[in-house]
Amino acid sequence: MPLTLYQASIPVFIRGFTNLSAVLEKAKAHAAANNIDLATYVNARLAPDMYPLSGQVQSASDAAKFAAARLAAITAPSFADTETTFDELQARIAKTLDFLKTVSEEQINARAGGQVTLKIRGKEMTFDCEPYLLNFALPNFFFHVTTAYDVLRNQGVPLGKMDYLGSF
Amino acid sequence: MPLTLYQASIPVFIRGFTNLSAVLEKAKAHAAANNIDLATYVNARLAPDMYPLSGQVQSASDAAKFAAARLAAITAPSFADTETTFDELQARIAKTLDFLKTVSEEQINARAGGQVTLKIRGKEMTFDCEPYLLNFALPNFFFHVTTAYDVLRNQGVPLGKMDYLGSF
Repeated sequence: MPLTLYQASIPVFIRGFTNLSAVLEKAKAHAAANNIDLATYVNARLAPDMYPLSGQVQSASDAAKFAAARLAAITAPSFADTETTFDELQARIAKTLDFLKTVSEEQINARAGGQVTLKIRGKEMTFDCEPYLLNFALPNFFFHVTTAYDVLRNQGVPLGKMDYLGSF
Repeated sequence: MPLTLYQASIPVFIRGFTNLSAVLEKAKAHAAANNIDLATYVNARLAPDMYPLSGQVQSASDAAKFAAARLAAITAPSFADTETTFDELQARIAKTLDFLKTVSEEQINARAGGQVTLKIRGKEMTFDCEPYLLNFALPNFFFHVTTAYDVLRNQGVPLGKMDYLGSF
């Protein structure tokens, strides 16, 4: 089974979001059991100039949806960053998953060896699809999923790395 | 240019560590400019039961070296987790990079479609090389690199996501 561009992108994002959704569920249960206002988690951040949990989930969604759209050479759906509750963050994840699942193996794999263009810090840059995925899209996605997890750990939510990695 | 098992592993780990090394350098410079004891950063953590910065760097090193060794079907070098200073953490990264650079494209790509066996939570599990890399090794590596970055951000070190992603 050779490695394909599809295999290294869409299912990885889907798995990451499925795990993140379960992490949010655990946080919600912990808050309920300990009389913690969920808004505390939604607005929690690790540094004053970092996104709070809500922004980390929105950024993970953007990272995955734009990567999928660029790789498939289609247009990404537009999601307003208006989520302020856990239920809305879960809905954002669900919408992102719905979009990711519409992107087919054929669409992505037909683009092997193709190029993507994106703006990084205002500068338009062109990459081959493979280094774009490996050097930008995947690290960027995992950055936001991990930071969402780290924000919740920093808030005292009992989680372990296997919650982030998911079951095997 | 099709995606290879090598391309999706060794150069990704090398790039991640090169960026992490630069992140540590920025933290060191910030500490020096602000009279902060570097030991504060080395021992800082986001939750009482999470590894401090030193453990995050050691875990990133282990994640990459074991992934490389399992994929290449060779033995990973043994590194004692004894680092307690920034210089020692940089040396750990350098040693890990040295090992990663000894693993050849041919060694890894010859293993496409092969299997790896590892213990997860004490349970021996066998995976095909590709899902092992995509579902376990890469997310695990980025988890520790991101958390090292998050610890430093939480300590007030001025960093941006491009420090983590590296230059393009």
